[in-house]
Amino acid sequence: MSLKLTILGCHSATPRSFANPTAQFLEINDRGFLIDCGEGTQTQLRKYKIKFSQIKHIFISHLHGDHIYGLIGLISSFGLLSRQTDLHIFAPKELEELINIQLSITKSWVSFPIIFHPLTSKNSELIFEDKKVEVHTIPLKHRIYTNGFLFKEKARDRKLNMKAVKEHPQIEVCDYHKIKKGHDFVSPEGEIIPNCDLTYDPPKILQYAFCSDTAYSKKIIPLIREVDLLYHESTFLEDNKTLAKLTKHATALEAASIAKEAGVKRLLLGHYSSRYKNEELFLQEACSVFTPVELSEQGKVFQVENQA
Amino acid sequence: MSLKLTILGCHSATPRSFANPTAQFLEINDRGFLIDCGEGTQTQLRKYKIKFSQIKHIFISHLHGDHIYGLIGLISSFGLLSRQTDLHIFAPKELEELINIQLSITKSWVSFPIIFHPLTSKNSELIFEDKKVEVHTIPLKHRIYTNGFLFKEKARDRKLNMKAVKEHPQIEVCDYHKIKKGHDFVSPEGEIIPNCDLTYDPPKILQYAFCSDTAYSKKIIPLIREVDLLYHESTFLEDNKTLAKLTKHATALEAASIAKEAGVKRLLLGHYSSRYKNEELFLQEACSVFTPVELSEQGKVFQVENQA
Repeated sequence: MSLKLTILGCHSATPRSFANPTAQFLEINDRGFLIDCGEGTQTQLRKYKIKFSQIKHIFISHLHGDHIYGLIGLISSFGLLSRQTDLHIFAPKELEELINIQLSITKSWVSFPIIFHPLTSKNSELIFEDKKVEVHTIPLKHRIYTNGFLFKEKARDRKLNMKAVKEHPQIEVCDYHKIKKGHDFVSPEGEIIPNCDLTYDPPKILQYAFCSDTAYSKKIIPLIREVDLLYHESTFLEDNKTLAKLTKHATALEAASIAKEAGVKRLLLGHYSSRYKNEELFLQEACSVFTPVELSEQGKVFQVENQA
Repeated sequence: MSLKLTILGCHSATPRSFANPTAQFLEINDRGFLIDCGEGTQTQLRKYKIKFSQIKHIFISHLHGDHIYGLIGLISSFGLLSRQTDLHIFAPKELEELINIQLSITKSWVSFPIIFHPLTSKNSELIFEDKKVEVHTIPLKHRIYTNGFLFKEKARDRKLNMKAVKEHPQIEVCDYHKIKKGHDFVSPEGEIIPNCDLTYDPPKILQYAFCSDTAYSKKIIPLIREVDLLYHESTFLEDNKTLAKLTKHATALEAASIAKEAGVKRLLLGHYSSRYKNEELFLQEACSVFTPVELSEQGKVFQVENQA
C-alpha cells in the first residue's frame, strides 16, 4: 500500500514559459488517477514518463480553463494512438457537452468509449469504488461549482499470525477467511480463540485529499481529517487576503490552518499566482501555523509509504 | 521591409515531450500575425518573448486539434490579462461556435471584442488588407476544409532620386507625389521628363506562403509563385507515400517539387510525423529536387531582408 503523487502542473492560469496549470497524477494502491488537466498536460505526462495506458479515470474539479484546457488534446491523442480501453471522466456535468462538441467540430472521432460521470451534488458523495480504492467528492467554495477529491485506500483484511495459528491444530485452512475478516475462532467444541491472538493489524489505509480551487472553508475539515497528504491551493499570500476572498481562492496561511485543524499528516501547497516571484514565501507563511508543508513543483513526486 | 518568421511549433499531432504542434508568428512590414495555434502556443509565445499585445490577427488553417487546441487558452489568457484591443480571427466558420461554447461553459467572459472572419470559400480570396500588408487564402487539399495563407507586402511608392530631381528646378515639392506613383513629369510648357530619370525602383515586396496541412497539389502553384519563403508541410518521407495520400498529407519530396515548380526562393519544411526520429532525412529528400531547403524547428527564426 503506497501513495505516489506526480505534479504535472501547479500554477494558476496566467501563462508563463515555465509554469503549467493544474494537473496531477496519483498512484494509490495499484490504481492510477489523473486529477485535472490544464493545457499541456499530455506533454507533461510524456515528460515525466507516465504512460497514457495508465490513465483510465480522470477527475476534474471544475470547469475553469486552467483545469481543463488540456483534456481535449489528451483525448484526441488517445484516439490517434488507437486506444481501445474505456475512459472514465468524473466532472461537472457540462463537460460532456464541451468535449462532444470539440470532437465533433474537429472531426476527431475516437474509437474508445468515453464514460462521463456527471457531478452535480453539493454534498460529498462516493463517486468511484473498486476492490482497492474509493473516491469521494469534497465540495469546495469557488466562483463556480467545484469539487475536491478524497482518494482512499480500501481497508485490507487482518494479517494472519501464522506462528500463532499453527499452535492451534483445530484451525483449518478453510477457517482463515473468517479470521482475516476479524472474527474470533470458535471450535466445534465451543472453544473460543480471540482474533487478536491470531492476527496482526492490517496496514493502515492511506488517503490523499486534493482541494483546488477553493476559498478558505472550514466545511471541508470533517472530510479530510487526518489524511496522509493534503493538497490545498494557496493562490495568494496574506498580503492579498482581500483579493483571495474576492476571487474565492485561499492564502498559504489559510491552507495551513485547514491542515492544522484537520490534523493532516503533510500539507502540499500549489496554484500559485504569477504575481509572486518567490514561492518560498508560501512555505514560510504556511509553516508559521503548521508543519510539515511542502511546495508543489512541476515534475516533483510526493510519496507516502505505509509503515505498518 | 522585412519578414521574420518564428516557429512556435512544427510537429504533427502525436504528443511528445519536446514537440509542439503547429503555430508560427510572422512579422511582415511592421505587422504581426499568429498562424495556427496548437496546444501550448501561449507558453511558446512566452518562451520566445513574443508579446501578447503583438497579436491582433490570428489565421487558422483548419479545425484539426493540433492546429487549434491552444486557441481557447490563449484567448482566456488575453481576458485574464485585461486585454482591451480587438482580436481578429480568420478561420473556418465552425470555430466561432466552438470558441463561444468554451468561453460560455468555462465562464471565461472576455472584455475585448473578438471579431470572427469565417472562411468558407473554396477559391483563393483576399481576406485581410491594410496599408502595409494583404493576406490571401490558398485553398489546400486535406481531409477537412483547409486554407493556407499568402502574406504579401503592399507595393511601395518609387523612390525619388533627389539629385536628379534637383537638376530640374521646374519640379516642385507638390509634384513629388505623382512622380513617386510612377508618372512622368510634364511641365506647364509640355516638357516631359521620364519617370525613370527621376526615381529608383522601390524595394521589392516580400511574400510568405504557409501551406499546411495538405496533400501534394499542383493547384497551389500559381498562388505561391516566386514567394520569398514557402512553408510546405512534409508529414512523411517518400517511404510512406501511400500513407501520405491516404491521410492527405505531403512528403518532403512532394513539398520540394511544389517549391521548384513555383520557383520560390526558399523552402521550409515541417509538420513531421513522430515516426521519423531523424529530421535530417526530410532535408536530404527535399534537397534532391530543390534548394535551398530548411527545417522548421521550435524557436528557430527565419528572416528575409529586402536587399533593394
